[in-house]
Amino acid sequence: MTSLFKKVALVARHGKPEIITSMLDLAGFLAEDGVVVLFDDQSIDADQAAGYQRIERDKIGRMADLVVVLGGDGTMLSVARLIAPYRIPLVGINQGRLGFMTDIPLHEMKQSVAEILKGEFIPEERILLEATLYRNGQEITKGLAFNDVVFSRGATGSMIEFEIFVDDQFVYSQRSDGLIVSTPTGSTAYSLASGGPILHPTVPAITLVPICPQSLSNRPIAINDGSVVEFILTRGQDARVHFDNQSHNDLHELDRVVIRRYRNSLRILHPMNYSYYDMLRHKLHWGEKLL
Amino acid sequence: MTSLFKKVALVARHGKPEIITSMLDLAGFLAEDGVVVLFDDQSIDADQAAGYQRIERDKIGRMADLVVVLGGDGTMLSVARLIAPYRIPLVGINQGRLGFMTDIPLHEMKQSVAEILKGEFIPEERILLEATLYRNGQEITKGLAFNDVVFSRGATGSMIEFEIFVDDQFVYSQRSDGLIVSTPTGSTAYSLASGGPILHPTVPAITLVPICPQSLSNRPIAINDGSVVEFILTRGQDARVHFDNQSHNDLHELDRVVIRRYRNSLRILHPMNYSYYDMLRHKLHWGEKLL
Amino acid sequence: MTSLFKKVALVARHGKPEIITSMLDLAGFLAEDGVVVLFDDQSIDADQAAGYQRIERDKIGRMADLVVVLGGDGTMLSVARLIAPYRIPLVGINQGRLGFMTDIPLHEMKQSVAEILKGEFIPEERILLEATLYRNGQEITKGLAFNDVVFSRGATGSMIEFEIFVDDQFVYSQRSDGLIVSTPTGSTAYSLASGGPILHPTVPAITLVPICPQSLSNRPIAINDGSVVEFILTRGQDARVHFDNQSHNDLHELDRVVIRRYRNSLRILHPMNYSYYDMLRHKLHWGEKLL
Amino acid sequence: MTSLFKKVALVARHGKPEIITSMLDLAGFLAEDGVVVLFDDQSIDADQAAGYQRIERDKIGRMADLVVVLGGDGTMLSVARLIAPYRIPLVGINQGRLGFMTDIPLHEMKQSVAEILKGEFIPEERILLEATLYRNGQEITKGLAFNDVVFSRGATGSMIEFEIFVDDQFVYSQRSDGLIVSTPTGSTAYSLASGGPILHPTVPAITLVPICPQSLSNRPIAINDGSVVEFILTRGQDARVHFDNQSHNDLHELDRVVIRRYRNSLRILHPMNYSYYDMLRHKLHWGEKLL
Repeated sequence: MTSLFKKVALVARHGKPEIITSMLDLAGFLAEDGVVVLFDDQSIDADQAAGYQRIERDKIGRMADLVVVLGGDGTMLSVARLIAPYRIPLVGINQGRLGFMTDIPLHEMKQSVAEILKGEFIPEERILLEATLYRNGQEITKGLAFNDVVFSRGATGSMIEFEIFVDDQFVYSQRSDGLIVSTPTGSTAYSLASGGPILHPTVPAITLVPICPQSLSNRPIAINDGSVVEFILTRGQDARVHFDNQSHNDLHELDRVVIRRYRNSLRILHPMNYSYYDMLRHKLHWGEKLL
Repeated sequence: MTSLFKKVALVARHGKPEIITSMLDLAGFLAEDGVVVLFDDQSIDADQAAGYQRIERDKIGRMADLVVVLGGDGTMLSVARLIAPYRIPLVGINQGRLGFMTDIPLHEMKQSVAEILKGEFIPEERILLEATLYRNGQEITKGLAFNDVVFSRGATGSMIEFEIFVDDQFVYSQRSDGLIVSTPTGSTAYSLASGGPILHPTVPAITLVPICPQSLSNRPIAINDGSVVEFILTRGQDARVHFDNQSHNDLHELDRVVIRRYRNSLRILHPMNYSYYDMLRHKLHWGEKLL
Repeated sequence: MTSLFKKVALVARHGKPEIITSMLDLAGFLAEDGVVVLFDDQSIDADQAAGYQRIERDKIGRMADLVVVLGGDGTMLSVARLIAPYRIPLVGINQGRLGFMTDIPLHEMKQSVAEILKGEFIPEERILLEATLYRNGQEITKGLAFNDVVFSRGATGSMIEFEIFVDDQFVYSQRSDGLIVSTPTGSTAYSLASGGPILHPTVPAITLVPICPQSLSNRPIAINDGSVVEFILTRGQDARVHFDNQSHNDLHELDRVVIRRYRNSLRILHPMNYSYYDMLRHKLHWGEKLL
Repeated sequence: MTSLFKKVALVARHGKPEIITSMLDLAGFLAEDGVVVLFDDQSIDADQAAGYQRIERDKIGRMADLVVVLGGDGTMLSVARLIAPYRIPLVGINQGRLGFMTDIPLHEMKQSVAEILKGEFIPEERILLEATLYRNGQEITKGLAFNDVVFSRGATGSMIEFEIFVDDQFVYSQRSDGLIVSTPTGSTAYSLASGGPILHPTVPAITLVPICPQSLSNRPIAINDGSVVEFILTRGQDARVHFDNQSHNDLHELDRVVIRRYRNSLRILHPMNYSYYDMLRHKLHWGEKLL
């Protein structure tokens, strides 16, 4: 076999001994095939790495041809944001419960990865969002999100008030607990809990999903993913903007956050038996009769 | 002024005397500019037509360059399905309450139409759905829908059971009052009342929105508008399939309905001050504080 | 053992051979204890009845001290309406999937029934609704419902329009697919699929749950079960009123239906280990992590 | 005229000059009738009080026979919790937008109050909740709520996990943004924005409404208002419990909060033309056709 991918980085959810075992197992399997294995240094300690090269997480994008994640959807999210600038594909192997993105079960790990290295896979392009925070006309920070950019009230319990513009057109002012701006990937995460629709990954759209809006006629809306969303905080003492619920920034009144589709999309490689709908049905218990 | 459109057909909601007045008023205005006016013969009687040519409704598509509808969204729906094969654009003037599609108020009729004839308009492409009903492997009928194809229980009150496939992949079996397969245009109609998301017209997607599903985890899902949806009725004594809620067919158990995007889309011309979000906000009372 | 109940009627879901076996098994068990067993004649044929007395279903209320139902929630509903005038208690044994009301699994049937006969049970009072249909001021018919009285559109797919009054106060006019007037018992049935709240059986309330209402601000409302609900059909060609989705009447425009709590409530006897919340959690999969 | 109420306390939303004018106007009107007027000292400064007696807010309950609130629903909430121990009735006059509880418009203030003093009113009893927070088996604090006791995540954006027991029976464990435990009064406030049902004030129930629950089958549930609700925080770094969204306490993991109906209910006096349903319809725009 000749692998399509010469350098494969392995990233794992931190701190689980059984994941280290899986990581080393997979590394050996890859090395046998002549693949160069790179370990994310946050995933494994030097004394556990059995001689494989460890690299800093933020160099993975530049050094690897493929990234394999062992963990859950949370680990996928953080790796996705990191490698998005480099256009290298991602494979997800779940440890434990099947994830929406980590769709390869551990016991099929080697077989699935072998097939993927041979070029037998179903590729899936997924968009990311880029959000820029402006204060008094100055850019304060930029963030990427693979699931969602979430605006939310803080701990006081008071609703926040904001205005939304899409492509410079006024959409609405809203008083609510917050707003979820979601990719299709994020549509099965927090957005779903807040009443948002599920979007198949091939739908080129971004959804705006209000969280407990005061106005009863406010509903989720999907817009074209070429559109630019602008959020202006008009009232809220302790509002925040969250990126994939893994990092956040405080917001001041009159802060502006501009969200657009990130220039690159992310490529997830699935085994040939992958079906998005199978995964949905499994995760959401659609097969079952509940009543 | 030289009009971009040489032959303009006028169609009106039937049976309102004040609409006849508006129709004749608009016809005179167009004729002054050298535009050939065609009256839909279902909209106006021969003795009211003041010498303008009356043509059969199903010939409008072949004879006109532009269709102006005076009425409500219901009239727009029926005209849209009729002219969809011919790629001629549509303008909507509301009589009474502003519609989602009939966005020109009566008192701005002449000014807006004049601008549109001069080429000053915002064009909006909207998809339609084509549904084909198969029974025992034979095609029974075909229908177009501009809003939605709706599968529903009949009068007995018993839920129906069906299976959905998208692009030959099994999505779910469901027990419910029915299912709405909606275009972005239809996303603000019945779909919205049933909990579906709003889709901006530029989102190339079709939504599947369950009606009172028995399984509490069933949610609306948006798929790419290049996908093919297949519905199979597995149980239901008096199920029906409806097209824009304006025509319908009875369904037998094991009937298959295949839905795909219709080959043409429909072009609606809006005045330059048109904003989709303004219209939404107005229709859905988003500006108001309800609590 | 001396049974609290001298005459026990057995009713079963029709047409399943394995239910006949369970029925005869339970009958033998009861007869051994000196209990007089009565078979519902719709549940078992004469040649299967093994000498036990068969009585007409509508005489059960007058002749038995206790009714044991073998079947599902559907059988419970029809028996409940039948015995409601007679104040005799009901026990539900499920055949197959656990029901909301048929909470005794088949394999615990004898043990649970034995305990109930000894007086070891948790009684639960459940209300019923009585609906009276008036046309042109004349009473047309009366019906009982244990789950719900449902007003709904028929097969045409057109929404119906109606007005609701509670205790002679105007509540709203509504355009929708229909309205569910539900007891707490019915709150886990159709009402739940339509977005209604769950009501614990001890909450003395009736819920009004709109089905796909056109107005987005229409929400389920719970009123005191001492209140009188009045429904007036203002528009609808083929509207119907359904009782527990087991019988129905056609409605004409301007028909009035008056709904109030039925004078008797129904008593369900549960085994000592019964918990309403356990049952909910089991049926609605609340224990599980779906995302 | 002889007033039924000898001592009337006036409380106003702080800080609006036009409210001071209304307050003095009403005070003069009452004094003319021989009623003793007491001003809440937080509502009006000494130099504005025109000689009327000012008393501390927390003495109102002991000194007045009736409290008239000029303001909005927020002011009503805080006064309600304060006077609940004393069983004195409350009247609400709105300044600006009509409230759910402040149902007397300013321009009808004198006429409505005059009628109420004469005994011409519709009384409405409304329950309150009493919540007790326990940490390591010790009572930490107690709080009253007229609308709701809300458990919520803090600013981190991470969901909280908790278990709910009702009358010592396990109901569910839940992962969500939080939980609203609401009175019928609160059912038209935050609970409604979170998908909860509306409860008529005469329904003796408490609702448990999840906020963005992770499990899609979690639904609002109404329980008898004689039940005791127990909340145990099993996971959450910065969870809080809020009382009417006007005060709050931080929660630690394994904290227990026990909620029960407060021993007294609150009496609101309405003018004779009051209708709960009129108010709902007005506030929720039920009369309007939105689609």
